Amino acid sequence: MNSAAHFTARAKLSLAALLLLAGQALAQSDPLPSWNDGAAKKAIVEFVQATTTQGGAKFVPPAERIATFDQDGTLWVEHPMYSQVMYSLERVPALVKAKPELANVEPFKTAMSGNREAIAKLPFTDLEKILAATLTGMSVDTFNAEVRKWLDTAKDPRWKRPYTELTYLPMQEVLKYLRDNGYKTYIVTGGGQDFVRVYAEKTYGIPPEQVVGTMGGTKYGYDKSGKPFLTKEPKLLLNDDNAGKPEGIHLMIGRRPYAAFGNTAGDRQMLEYTGTGDGARLMMLVLHDDSTREYAYGPAQGLGDTKVGAFTQALYDEAKKKGWTVISMKNDWKRIFAFD
Amino acid sequence: MNSAAHFTARAKLSLAALLLLAGQALAQSDPLPSWNDGAAKKAIVEFVQATTTQGGAKFVPPAERIATFDQDGTLWVEHPMYSQVMYSLERVPALVKAKPELANVEPFKTAMSGNREAIAKLPFTDLEKILAATLTGMSVDTFNAEVRKWLDTAKDPRWKRPYTELTYLPMQEVLKYLRDNGYKTYIVTGGGQDFVRVYAEKTYGIPPEQVVGTMGGTKYGYDKSGKPFLTKEPKLLLNDDNAGKPEGIHLMIGRRPYAAFGNTAGDRQMLEYTGTGDGARLMMLVLHDDSTREYAYGPAQGLGDTKVGAFTQALYDEAKKKGWTVISMKNDWKRIFAFD
Repeated sequence: MNSAAHFTARAKLSLAALLLLAGQALAQSDPLPSWNDGAAKKAIVEFVQATTTQGGAKFVPPAERIATFDQDGTLWVEHPMYSQVMYSLERVPALVKAKPELANVEPFKTAMSGNREAIAKLPFTDLEKILAATLTGMSVDTFNAEVRKWLDTAKDPRWKRPYTELTYLPMQEVLKYLRDNGYKTYIVTGGGQDFVRVYAEKTYGIPPEQVVGTMGGTKYGYDKSGKPFLTKEPKLLLNDDNAGKPEGIHLMIGRRPYAAFGNTAGDRQMLEYTGTGDGARLMMLVLHDDSTREYAYGPAQGLGDTKVGAFTQALYDEAKKKGWTVISMKNDWKRIFAFD
Repeated sequence: MNSAAHFTARAKLSLAALLLLAGQALAQSDPLPSWNDGAAKKAIVEFVQATTTQGGAKFVPPAERIATFDQDGTLWVEHPMYSQVMYSLERVPALVKAKPELANVEPFKTAMSGNREAIAKLPFTDLEKILAATLTGMSVDTFNAEVRKWLDTAKDPRWKRPYTELTYLPMQEVLKYLRDNGYKTYIVTGGGQDFVRVYAEKTYGIPPEQVVGTMGGTKYGYDKSGKPFLTKEPKLLLNDDNAGKPEGIHLMIGRRPYAAFGNTAGDRQMLEYTGTGDGARLMMLVLHDDSTREYAYGPAQGLGDTKVGAFTQALYDEAKKKGWTVISMKNDWKRIFAFD
């Protein structure tokens, strides 16, 4: 071995030693730094360790590692109103401009009035009309461009920041931690599948094919030049909420998740379906009990009723009974937002 | 450096040298050994090189590398009859045993008769009744178990082999070659999504979440012990054929493919949708023109009409006009099956 070879060999050994040390350091570093030590953090870490330890009784083959996350109230802020509903309400002026005949037709008239109190009182059936009129009837490409444009400028009324910045840092850490351990992370939301897909990749690192949401039909057709395009139809294929969540999971994924995260009664069946599988399963519910740093609403635990994202007392009791972990935003989360 | 360290260093260098040589050998080896040299093979290799060469004009980021494959007639044999239809017909006795009132009701009576000629003449609406009765109305778990059991014993009438062995080796090589180059491979089939999912992972290395097919609804409910389960409902959500293919791709993947493979007029819109995207796109159609090693049917190119998997002359002409590559089984494929 000549001196050059000596040097190379020595350098390689040093590099190997460094990599070894770095690896150990990484293994020891905390994957969930925004979480306080407690039962919730412990449950996540123990679940990941149990399902990824080769040869362990609860080992899950990488191909089967599926984790599902509700979005509104679980991954990002849903109060005072779901951002998709804000989008639809703010689209009404453009809609009425394109279709002036709607100006004096309810619920568009109220939506145009700017009277927040009256808008807040619109019944659900009226809200559905507004959602259908603003989320369908255009090409997929036009819709994507409109949502993207809105997200670039719209701001949450409290933090005055883009909605996509209002994601919970502790949950972003869970997404990354699971992915780093071979899990495929899915969003399973009652929100519109196409709406969430517009920003899920950039915001959560979740690609469009891993977004399961309320699904509408599309129609394949041609423009005047003969170029094909897809139009969003007002045809509901699946309402991805409550029992629709396991149904949507079966449709889009075809496997039972090993971990499921939610925050309302609409996530109950997803957690139940997940928990019915064999081996280690992780079911978690975010409880919004931090009126200072975010919001406090239940009605579980006397936190007050809400129209948006209800964590019922019955769900809380079921969670306790079945060993689903309730995450207290107040106690379990050291930091809530990346901008904190 | 002591002698042990010397030895380790030397061993490491040798190992590195070996790995380097092996890497070069692999890089030079043919990823498509069952393909004859020709336009089809060239089109695949050039597409992969163009879309994976960093810095190239046609480079596609890994996250966007989506390739879609029709199944029947594209990945495996579809003649004399789609295997899913064979499954449904062979399930009829068990169905009639469970529901004796169907024994004298058409089309179940004919299906039970064993009269192949009469069965072959059943109109499509009758076939649909048999498909609905044998593919829905049971739990997802029961369905999966029944299909798995059938696949373990059923044999193709010509080769006397399990249907899952009748996959085309050249297409298996394309699937692997694309995956080795960062592509996510999807099946996009007119067949039942749940049916194909049962064997797609073992047969093609394609996981359930990457199978897009004709989709039926499921219903979340509970058994007597309170355990939740999904029942397959006779509710059609999407007929994943013709225009339904791009609609299904949007629903399940949410991105336009860069490569699409088919073999009939039912794949036309999928190829058209794929080809309308920017940059390098690969559209290919398998032409069954090998009556000796497999089957010959068209009706394109005078290959004779068929009820199962029609490659029309109009599709052939469109392919030639648009630069979609027609794969001749006879001329482009050196081997057809792994067992050849």
